[in-house]
Amino acid sequence: MPQTAVAIQGERGSFSEEAARALLGRNVQVLPQETFAAIFRSVTDGEARYCLAPIENTLAGSVYENYDLLLEHDLHIVAEVNLRIVHHLIAFPGTTMENLRQVYSHPVALAQCGKFFKRHPKVEKIPFYDTAGSVKMLAERKIRGAAAIASHIAASVYGGRILQKHLEDHQENYTRFLLLSRQATVAPGSNKVSIAFSTRNVPGALFKCLSVFALRDIDLTKMESRPSRGHPWEYLFYLDFVGNIKEKKCQKALDHLAEVTDFLRVLGCYKSGER
Amino acid sequence: MPQTAVAIQGERGSFSEEAARALLGRNVQVLPQETFAAIFRSVTDGEARYCLAPIENTLAGSVYENYDLLLEHDLHIVAEVNLRIVHHLIAFPGTTMENLRQVYSHPVALAQCGKFFKRHPKVEKIPFYDTAGSVKMLAERKIRGAAAIASHIAASVYGGRILQKHLEDHQENYTRFLLLSRQATVAPGSNKVSIAFSTRNVPGALFKCLSVFALRDIDLTKMESRPSRGHPWEYLFYLDFVGNIKEKKCQKALDHLAEVTDFLRVLGCYKSGER
Repeated sequence: MPQTAVAIQGERGSFSEEAARALLGRNVQVLPQETFAAIFRSVTDGEARYCLAPIENTLAGSVYENYDLLLEHDLHIVAEVNLRIVHHLIAFPGTTMENLRQVYSHPVALAQCGKFFKRHPKVEKIPFYDTAGSVKMLAERKIRGAAAIASHIAASVYGGRILQKHLEDHQENYTRFLLLSRQATVAPGSNKVSIAFSTRNVPGALFKCLSVFALRDIDLTKMESRPSRGHPWEYLFYLDFVGNIKEKKCQKALDHLAEVTDFLRVLGCYKSGER
Repeated sequence: MPQTAVAIQGERGSFSEEAARALLGRNVQVLPQETFAAIFRSVTDGEARYCLAPIENTLAGSVYENYDLLLEHDLHIVAEVNLRIVHHLIAFPGTTMENLRQVYSHPVALAQCGKFFKRHPKVEKIPFYDTAGSVKMLAERKIRGAAAIASHIAASVYGGRILQKHLEDHQENYTRFLLLSRQATVAPGSNKVSIAFSTRNVPGALFKCLSVFALRDIDLTKMESRPSRGHPWEYLFYLDFVGNIKEKKCQKALDHLAEVTDFLRVLGCYKSGER
């Protein structure tokens, strides 16, 4: 894949940047944006070739805003990556483990390092808007006795030093990111398909939708539902399944699904990330 | 149902209090708590008889924190209510539509009243932690030219005046609340069952789970998934279906479901709220 601009949400040095490097190489050019809506717009407007959107975390669950944005924009999923979330304690000259008094980070990251704070009861947790942003702030203000919790990439981007590695309580903390593009390319080796659909409002509708996969021995890997705007108590479904849209079996399944749905869109066909 | 204490999240005068009054009568005694976790704890600890937890909104989607809390606590769903979210502009003496300059409310409420702010471009939106809390703050500080957006209940609780009714852009804005109790009672006329389950990790697992309902012509009204903690890329499912657990058909379906699941829990059987 060529080295080219990828829009990411958050500051330089974020977990999104770590995921972008894992997927596209360490020299990838990232375009930081404040919001998820902005990264989708960057690609739609042609400002960036790709954007990288976190879609689910194995502890916190789905990122619903990005599920909604997938349908609001005409972008295509071309790759995915599952990033293990590893938290490091990062500081600048003047701060050591001995004089550490304050730790800045995003509230979710602080909550995921509970055991570290139990071992260091005198260290104050200070919530900040962003993990990498807290490293950036310390790089500028050089607060003595203060450190930040963030990705190792944040240490290298802002020139910080890793005081302690692996602060996270749970090892089983992964975030799945989707790479989105204006072009609907299907890379060699693609083995996963993502779709969105709404059912007809009839009894057994969802069962009929899932039957098109079960009857063809097609495995589902994820299912998500979101409210249908303007239709209270009706839902849109998002489904990931194992296969390639160029295979006859998948084409037949999607044809069959079109018969039993009101709305159906293929969001992309791509290579499953390593688990 | 007897008049008794119901724990609600947020300040007095919130939409949760409006929902509690709609379900249990206007004299219901509410016990305001800061967090959703605290309302579940109040019932578990016997401090309140019930708690009322918002579980989904027709625009924003499911309240995932409350889905998780349902499984962390041993409470039972005994009733539900669907509240239409109607936003009112509430002020105190000294503020009129003519001198209005600032409107305080929760960011979601401010976002849901976009058309009002387009019609009044000189009025500043000021985000606040809570809808009813912004009315409470104005009742205390009496800021001239400032109003708040909240439920009509907030006006009566804090003695404010409704300057303008129905500020919301979308009429189709409903929040569904669940009433939870330590006792698993099934009220007369109950016609809805909520369950949680995890599938066995085999091909077609979810399809087999849904088949136990489809094969018995049992209608599903909602399905939700959440990550299974400690098992990355595996999911728990929450399902609502039409029926009463005392009916033979529902008992057979649940017996059948137990055969094809790893974990199964009935969360409650109750009367469906008016739609």
